[in-house]
Amino acid sequence: MAGPALAVSLGDPAGIGPELICEAWARREVEGLPAFFAVGGVRLLTAAAETRGIALPVERIADPLAAPAVFPHALPVLDDSDGDYRPGAPSREGAALALASLARAAALADEGAAGGIVTGPIAKARLAEVGFTYPGQTEFVAAACRVPAEDAVMLLAGPSLRTVPLTVHCSLASVPGRLSVDLIRNRGRIVHEGMRRDFGIAAPRLAICALNPHAGEEGRFGDEEQRIIAPAIAALRAEGIDASGPHPADSLFAPHARNSFDVALCMYHDQALIPLKALDFDNGVNMTLGLPIVRTSPDHGTAFGIAGRRQAHPGAMIAAIRMAGEAAARRAAAAAR
Amino acid sequence: MAGPALAVSLGDPAGIGPELICEAWARREVEGLPAFFAVGGVRLLTAAAETRGIALPVERIADPLAAPAVFPHALPVLDDSDGDYRPGAPSREGAALALASLARAAALADEGAAGGIVTGPIAKARLAEVGFTYPGQTEFVAAACRVPAEDAVMLLAGPSLRTVPLTVHCSLASVPGRLSVDLIRNRGRIVHEGMRRDFGIAAPRLAICALNPHAGEEGRFGDEEQRIIAPAIAALRAEGIDASGPHPADSLFAPHARNSFDVALCMYHDQALIPLKALDFDNGVNMTLGLPIVRTSPDHGTAFGIAGRRQAHPGAMIAAIRMAGEAAARRAAAAAR
Repeated sequence: MAGPALAVSLGDPAGIGPELICEAWARREVEGLPAFFAVGGVRLLTAAAETRGIALPVERIADPLAAPAVFPHALPVLDDSDGDYRPGAPSREGAALALASLARAAALADEGAAGGIVTGPIAKARLAEVGFTYPGQTEFVAAACRVPAEDAVMLLAGPSLRTVPLTVHCSLASVPGRLSVDLIRNRGRIVHEGMRRDFGIAAPRLAICALNPHAGEEGRFGDEEQRIIAPAIAALRAEGIDASGPHPADSLFAPHARNSFDVALCMYHDQALIPLKALDFDNGVNMTLGLPIVRTSPDHGTAFGIAGRRQAHPGAMIAAIRMAGEAAARRAAAAAR
Repeated sequence: MAGPALAVSLGDPAGIGPELICEAWARREVEGLPAFFAVGGVRLLTAAAETRGIALPVERIADPLAAPAVFPHALPVLDDSDGDYRPGAPSREGAALALASLARAAALADEGAAGGIVTGPIAKARLAEVGFTYPGQTEFVAAACRVPAEDAVMLLAGPSLRTVPLTVHCSLASVPGRLSVDLIRNRGRIVHEGMRRDFGIAAPRLAICALNPHAGEEGRFGDEEQRIIAPAIAALRAEGIDASGPHPADSLFAPHARNSFDVALCMYHDQALIPLKALDFDNGVNMTLGLPIVRTSPDHGTAFGIAGRRQAHPGAMIAAIRMAGEAAARRAAAAAR
C-alpha cells in the first residue's frame, strides 16, 4: 500500500529507543518493514547508529509526505529538534526532547500526515519533571486525539498471544472493586472493533478471563465471575460479539487453548503480562485500541542500563513498526472502499 | 539406585489416571523410569491398557519389595481392590476405589515399603461423596504422614520452571489478607530444604514474587511488598537462604529471567500456574514438599471427557514418576551417608 509513512517518536534519548529505530531501519528490507520516519534527532540517531555499528544515512525531510521516497536509501527525519546522545544518563533536556517528539508524532497522525505512530520508550518519572501529567503515553496519545482515557484500550500482542489488561497500574487488592459489567462490556466492544479494523479478523473471538482461581468454582471462592464477568459476557454476546468465559486464567494460555481465541481480556496487569512476557518477551507490542489513529509501541522500557551497549533486542521495535503498518494499511483500504 | 519401588495410586478409575499408568509402564525403558507398582486395579488397568493399544502384562504382587524384580517384564500390582473400567462415567464405587488406593499408597510410603508415591488424578467432588474431607490429595497425604497441612507445600514443576503458590484455592480478593511474614518465611524454609533434599541443589535460589504490578512501584500501588514480602525475604536471608525479590511477576518468567532462580514463590494460584501451564502444560508435576515421604502427581485433573479415547498426554505422569524416583534416590543416598 502507499499512504503516509509512520511517525516514530524517539523515546528517551538516553534509553534504547534511538538505537532500536536505527536497527529497525537497517533491517527494513529483510523484515519487510513499511516506510517510517523519525520525529527529531538527526544528531542523536547518527550517534546511536554508530554505537551499534550501523551505517546510517539520515535525510532531513520537511514534509512527512517525502518519507516514503527517502526511506529506501536513508532514514527520514522530520523536525529540527535534537539532543546529545548520552546513553544511560537521562536528563531534563532529554525528557523534553522525548516529549516534543511524542507530541509532534501524535499531532501528525491526528492530522493525517502520518499513517500512524510508533512511540519509543520513555521514563515516566523523567517526563513528569518536564510537565508531563499523564500516567503513560497511552493516555497522552488518547488526549491528543480527544478520546477519553477510559476508551483508549491497551492491547499487548506477541507472536503467540494477544491480551488486554482491564485494570493496569493499581494494587492487586483494589482490582476486584474496579471491575464492573460496564467496564468489561465497553472494553470488549472496543477490542472487538479493534480486532476487526486493525487486525482484519472478521469475527474476533474474545476470551474473557476469570478473576479467581478455577473461575471461583461456582462461587466457592469469589463471586465476581457470577456478579460481574458472566453478565458482561452475556451482554457482549447479545450484541453479536463472540465473547466466551469466564475462563480459568491458569489454563487459558496453554498451547492448545491459545488457538481457541484471538484475544484474551484479563482482569489485572499481571494476568495479562505474565503469559505474554513468558512466551513473547522479545517481541511484545503495546497497541492502543479505540483511537482514531494507529498507535503501537515496543513493550519494553527505556532500559537505561543497557543503552549504547549493543545489547538491546530490536524485535519488539520491529514488531511494533510492522503491526502499525499493517493496521494503517487496513484502515486505508477500508476508507478507500 | 536400588531401594523400594514407587507406589502409584490409581486416581479416579473413570478418569485418565489408569491409562496413563499403563502408558508410563509401556515407556519405562525409553523414558528410563524407576520401578513402580500400582496400588490395586488389575482388571481396571488391563482394560485401560487395551483402549490405548498397549500390550500390558500385569503381575499381582503381595509384597512391595517384589516390585523391582517384576517391573522390567510386567506392571506390578499390589492389593486386590479393583473396579470396572467405565472411562468418562465416574461413580461412587470408583471414588471409593480411588480413595482406598491413595490411602494404601500413602501408608506404604510412610512405613518405608514404598520409596515414594505418585498419585493419579481424583475428582474432589466425587471423593467427598465417599467421606473424603480434605481440600485435596496434598492435605490428605500430609495428614497420613502426621504433618500439619500448612507445612505441606505445593510445588509445581515443569521442564522450564518451578513455582510455589503461597495461597491456593481462595478468592483473589482474599489473597492480600492471607499473606504474612510468617507464611512466606515458613514456606520459604520448607522450599529451600526441599530443593536441597529432593532436587540436589546445594544452594537453591528462591525468587519471591511481588503481589502488585511492578512490585507496587515503591508503594504507589499497594504496600504488601514493603510491609510483608520484603521483611520476609530479609528474614530468610538472615538465615542464610538465598531469597531475592520482591520481583515484579510479569517479567520474572521471561526466558532470560528464568535462569536466575531455581524456584519462584508466588503470592497466589494464577501467578504460579499461568506461567507454568503456558510453558510446560503437558509436563507439569505437582510435588508436595515438607513431608517425610516423597509425593508427586501429574499436574492435571481426571479429564473424564477424554478418558478412554487415546487422547490423554502421558507426559505429566511420566515426569511425575521420574521426579519422584529422583527424589527418592537422593533421600536414600543421603540416609545411607
